[in-house]
Amino acid sequence: MNNIKLTIQFDGTKYKGWQKQNQKGSTVVTIQGKLENVLSKMTGEEIEVIGCGRTDSGVHADNYVANFNTHTNLSLEEIKKYLIEYLPEDIVIKDIKIAQERFHSRYNAISKTYIYRINNKKYVNVFNKRFTYHVPEELNIAKMQEAAKYLIGTHDFKSFTNLKVKNNRSTERHIKFINIKENDGVVEIEVNGNSFLLNMVRIIVGTLVEVGQGIKNPKEIKSILEGLNRELAGHKAPAKGLVLKEIEY
Amino acid sequence: MNNIKLTIQFDGTKYKGWQKQNQKGSTVVTIQGKLENVLSKMTGEEIEVIGCGRTDSGVHADNYVANFNTHTNLSLEEIKKYLIEYLPEDIVIKDIKIAQERFHSRYNAISKTYIYRINNKKYVNVFNKRFTYHVPEELNIAKMQEAAKYLIGTHDFKSFTNLKVKNNRSTERHIKFINIKENDGVVEIEVNGNSFLLNMVRIIVGTLVEVGQGIKNPKEIKSILEGLNRELAGHKAPAKGLVLKEIEY
Repeated sequence: MNNIKLTIQFDGTKYKGWQKQNQKGSTVVTIQGKLENVLSKMTGEEIEVIGCGRTDSGVHADNYVANFNTHTNLSLEEIKKYLIEYLPEDIVIKDIKIAQERFHSRYNAISKTYIYRINNKKYVNVFNKRFTYHVPEELNIAKMQEAAKYLIGTHDFKSFTNLKVKNNRSTERHIKFINIKENDGVVEIEVNGNSFLLNMVRIIVGTLVEVGQGIKNPKEIKSILEGLNRELAGHKAPAKGLVLKEIEY
Repeated sequence: MNNIKLTIQFDGTKYKGWQKQNQKGSTVVTIQGKLENVLSKMTGEEIEVIGCGRTDSGVHADNYVANFNTHTNLSLEEIKKYLIEYLPEDIVIKDIKIAQERFHSRYNAISKTYIYRINNKKYVNVFNKRFTYHVPEELNIAKMQEAAKYLIGTHDFKSFTNLKVKNNRSTERHIKFINIKENDGVVEIEVNGNSFLLNMVRIIVGTLVEVGQGIKNPKEIKSILEGLNRELAGHKAPAKGLVLKEIEY
């Protein structure tokens, strides 16, 4: 049996996120669901694809990592060709290889890098609107960078998640870096951390946008973190600006 | 009466080019058609929009220039707001101003700049595939740059057009510059000239791609120009990679 590792790029616009969902009487279109259907048809086995993590509905990925076990005799090239042919155009297999028997896309992930893109020009840009959040008011990048510094390191990010915390599960997470840069009207916010709570990157971005707009001041981030209360943080930025860039193993 | 000048960005994917077409019994969706419909409804006049030039079906524009005459009392802001509300999402009004009475978008244009984008990575990229031509074989940029030099200046571009030349009309045109650069797997070919023949930029790009692939050698461009025969040049690159970037007046 082989454990096969896939690197996948997808435009998440039309999908309800990565993870398959069981809903009675209706079909929920997810990336995992699409992949499992095509792979099961290809191999004649019931394939379960393990993903590196959930993604929100509408979020994209540049290098999503997933793995699955199979007894198939098909070569990697044949599997890749089959996937390219039968997957929808908005899911692309960038790489396929045989992983170590015990490799697990989710458990072995050490950290993740996300990129969030904002169109900060006055008008909607038809060339990037599918993958950017349009904020027409000018953003103060220096203030956003100052605010981001308070988020670096290990903190309880309870204010930055829409997760309903059960059973005293920890909401402590570690952010290694947040880089913010602007190029030709597009603001890119790159966030790297060990793992992320539900909607955490999008709420961080929404809060940083409010700092950039002057609604919040950079120093407030400290009290927002300490308050452990979702209502203190900013809005949840829309899914379409978010791309899972890289998984580090 | 005011002569109003519009700067328009559009994603041409769904349109049969700029220019309205009269076809019996079927509706042809064009940018000019869409604009004239909305403007005529807004003003109650029969508005004719003059564009800076035709564009092929499926070609995009970043700063297309058009103008129209109107007796409306609406302010520029009101017109802009109306257009944003009633135009489809893939047509964006970036700027609106009152032009001189005699300003004519097409006759007054001195030159045009086009950008053609090629995805030169092995796999299709879901994030740019709507606006790039996918060429998976590695392109030799230096050779493409060498080939492009032969096209600079004033030449008869008969080999580089699909135009059926009638009445001895001149196919002589002037190309001021062609810049080719590569950034993160995307090759950008920028072409500036006084005016262009039908499909000229796309045939230039297709020919340069063949040079980059090693199918043609750079020096051949000279004999292709001199041959005055469409069959000597390369293929016509697909419309989706082409953007009308700027019109110089």
